[in-house]
Amino acid sequence: VHAWRLLLIGFGTVGRGVATRLQAAREDLATHGVAVQIVGVADPAVGSIACPDGLEPGRLLELVHGGHDLTEYAGARPLEEPLAQLTELGVEVVFEMTPTDLRTGGVGLTHVRGALDAGCHVATTNKGPIALAYPELAALAARRGVQLKAEGTVLSGTPVLNLAENGLVGAGTRAFRGVLNGTCNFILCQMEEGCSYAEALIGAQELGYAEADPTGDVEGWDAAAKVSILANLVLGAGIVLEDVERRGIADLDAEQIRADAAAGTPWRLVGQARRAKTGWRAEVAPRRLAADDPLARARGATNGVVFETDALGEITIVGPGAGRDATGHALVADLVAIHRATRP
Amino acid sequence: VHAWRLLLIGFGTVGRGVATRLQAAREDLATHGVAVQIVGVADPAVGSIACPDGLEPGRLLELVHGGHDLTEYAGARPLEEPLAQLTELGVEVVFEMTPTDLRTGGVGLTHVRGALDAGCHVATTNKGPIALAYPELAALAARRGVQLKAEGTVLSGTPVLNLAENGLVGAGTRAFRGVLNGTCNFILCQMEEGCSYAEALIGAQELGYAEADPTGDVEGWDAAAKVSILANLVLGAGIVLEDVERRGIADLDAEQIRADAAAGTPWRLVGQARRAKTGWRAEVAPRRLAADDPLARARGATNGVVFETDALGEITIVGPGAGRDATGHALVADLVAIHRATRP
Repeated sequence: VHAWRLLLIGFGTVGRGVATRLQAAREDLATHGVAVQIVGVADPAVGSIACPDGLEPGRLLELVHGGHDLTEYAGARPLEEPLAQLTELGVEVVFEMTPTDLRTGGVGLTHVRGALDAGCHVATTNKGPIALAYPELAALAARRGVQLKAEGTVLSGTPVLNLAENGLVGAGTRAFRGVLNGTCNFILCQMEEGCSYAEALIGAQELGYAEADPTGDVEGWDAAAKVSILANLVLGAGIVLEDVERRGIADLDAEQIRADAAAGTPWRLVGQARRAKTGWRAEVAPRRLAADDPLARARGATNGVVFETDALGEITIVGPGAGRDATGHALVADLVAIHRATRP
Repeated sequence: VHAWRLLLIGFGTVGRGVATRLQAAREDLATHGVAVQIVGVADPAVGSIACPDGLEPGRLLELVHGGHDLTEYAGARPLEEPLAQLTELGVEVVFEMTPTDLRTGGVGLTHVRGALDAGCHVATTNKGPIALAYPELAALAARRGVQLKAEGTVLSGTPVLNLAENGLVGAGTRAFRGVLNGTCNFILCQMEEGCSYAEALIGAQELGYAEADPTGDVEGWDAAAKVSILANLVLGAGIVLEDVERRGIADLDAEQIRADAAAGTPWRLVGQARRAKTGWRAEVAPRRLAADDPLARARGATNGVVFETDALGEITIVGPGAGRDATGHALVADLVAIHRATRP
């Protein structure tokens, strides 16, 4: 059993999810030779701390759930500049879990780049760095001989990227289409039940699915980021976010949505990419699905992806598109993948 | 790039499928550091040959498609006792692809046991050895320090086992249910359209989905074997084939099947396993599915499995349950898994 020395950057919903999953999966991971020692947690909102001897995930969760600052963790010391202390703390793996910024990549890009450059493996749930800078970051990881994993950037912990990298290796995957955004899917399913777009959006905001400014979801930016991630990681397309044609759901006709769903051919916001005559065609747009389309089953916050392959025809995976524990699991699975790729 | 020295046992439909996929995926596999050298093919029906310098998959396919015996392969020599020549031929991996015998395990069990004992990695599509003797074979593989893979025993090349072993590791998978037999599913879907059971069975036999003696499929033996394989490999249940309660589809009422399908709640032959108060509960039985059950989408020869997990809730994978290239792919993916587990 190897105890991976881990730095968590971000201890909001995802960080707490990964702490929960690391605790729940401890025994199971040990049977696979994997253990974890959290040597630091960095999050300005709850306090940044380090402890070379390891921090207990359960204790970290108790503190934040109790409204305490992590700096109250007995025996830990403040962690002021996480990226500057990677070597000193002996960090082997960085989990980057800060919020997504699809314009610049934000601090997440700085963290991922810095951690890879310092020779750490990185697993991230942050779409910004992967959607905007994957080719650069993958090349950097290769130069440093480290792994860069990103399962949590698409369908949270539903193992879409893992499936493509492992079970579908050699199958000749040539295209995909997916329901990739839980917020839009929730709104469309509410419209199927008779809500107007405005009513459905307010409902999504009240449930915390949609943000106060819902642009990123309803105009298709989030789905477009996921299309560019899947196109690059699964198809090797080498595209950037702007290459993804994008149309959102705000101007759909509620009456039409309802009638078509009743007829068994529901509308979904579909993200897809396939090889075109020249280069790649990648897009996000509302599509009316055929009655037997496996994506029609993806309702509400449940998302799905269909891979088109030479060997197997269509392979569909359906699972949660979001969720605290689900996204936390993505990082656990990424850690096991790093372990298996480097320490057989 | 490591060129794996490979022995193919069985060169019927599956063997030809794997030759096809090894050819089609050659470039893609090379990018993952994997190459293949087929040093022997053993199949009494088409001739058994060896060539330490390697046999071309394309040439093997040309010979059998042209109705020739493999012994006509120029430069190859007869291979009389494959298991006795593993060391002499430098075989590293054996693909065992003989027909399934669920009563005794048949020659497949002898092949898998012998190959593991000789220190070869084994990938098999033969349900017999895995359903009947997995604990013994897994222990033998562990003692010899080799891998035993069996993706093709469940849903052909649809990466069900790979998903469970990689993407779902640490997710707390506690149960599964699946549509695991394409023949029964084809018959049930024909009955939904108005056929009687007898008519649907004849149709399945005419299309080559069902054998002259359809007992293995329609009485649920094939699905039960797959349940025991999934229960052991995914849940670690340690059960044997007889532990699977089994009911087939022969006594279902055609009118009921049609009416329930029209109401959106179709019948499927469902195989499942979950932990019970004492031990495990594993069964195969016809079940009427809820309208929103993801398995309802598995129609005809398309099969599917739903995993119930702690971290992710339900994860569904849907794909082909049979097919020459699909089953061939299973062995290719298993080979890559062997490569990654042993030569990072």
